[in-house]
Amino acid sequence: MQIIARPLTALAFAPFGDVLDATRSDFRLINAGMCRRHHDLARLDFGDGRAGLSIFHAEPRSFPYALDLIERHPEGSQAFVPMIDAPFLVIVAASPQDVPLAFVTNGAQGINLHRGTWHGVLTPLASPGLFAVIDRVGPGPNLQEHRYPVPWMITAG
Amino acid sequence: MQIIARPLTALAFAPFGDVLDATRSDFRLINAGMCRRHHDLARLDFGDGRAGLSIFHAEPRSFPYALDLIERHPEGSQAFVPMIDAPFLVIVAASPQDVPLAFVTNGAQGINLHRGTWHGVLTPLASPGLFAVIDRVGPGPNLQEHRYPVPWMITAG
Repeated sequence: MQIIARPLTALAFAPFGDVLDATRSDFRLINAGMCRRHHDLARLDFGDGRAGLSIFHAEPRSFPYALDLIERHPEGSQAFVPMIDAPFLVIVAASPQDVPLAFVTNGAQGINLHRGTWHGVLTPLASPGLFAVIDRVGPGPNLQEHRYPVPWMITAG
Repeated sequence: MQIIARPLTALAFAPFGDVLDATRSDFRLINAGMCRRHHDLARLDFGDGRAGLSIFHAEPRSFPYALDLIERHPEGSQAFVPMIDAPFLVIVAASPQDVPLAFVTNGAQGINLHRGTWHGVLTPLASPGLFAVIDRVGPGPNLQEHRYPVPWMITAG
């Protein structure tokens, strides 16, 4: 029941969401050449709601990390942008029956979880665990949870 | 023609936009008490377009900073979330005829410029100047610029 966390890459993460970083070469040069705009990187989806921007302040975690719960938001996507240059842990699963996958960001990456993606709760690895979160604001329930009978142990790669 | 940059506060910034931080006491406790959700902090407005999430990578600047240009986006708001815990410079103006105001963030603040707010270009004060930007993606022009005949000199407070 052990899972090794791997470096986050756009390719490995593609089935679950978008990696938000400044590594692609197809940027637009703006502000008289002083700024590179890596444009429109996330498949945002707010369903019947609207976009909201919130700040999450989460307690830092450490390895080994016991994963006992995953959740998903059936009505919209959810983007997480770290406000410090430190890695955080990203856990996703194709379904509650599949083995979860664990990734560690490189400190210059955010993520956007596509609508309905099963994921672990926000798990910073450093303090302060400040993130901007862009997700759906709207009426009605938008949270499903699955609790594992036996926790998965996530370890550093 | 000198302007002193002041610490950014929500009160002083209110006529221009929202300060995005984790200082308000009306957060929601989520994830079994491990995370504070400071909910829906920005007056987002995408007009006839849609929300987009981009990453800006800007060259760091330093004081004194010569301000020769302001711009605005008449069709939507624009939020800037720093991806490192370092201050950045925020410049806004009520109009091209008014004296601009300059603010320095405390390293744990993002901003959301309300639709149509005149502002300076993105000016990080540290490297890497990485920001997540949430703004309108849509057809048609969405940029107006004003060039000052004589630059304003922005100095540290």
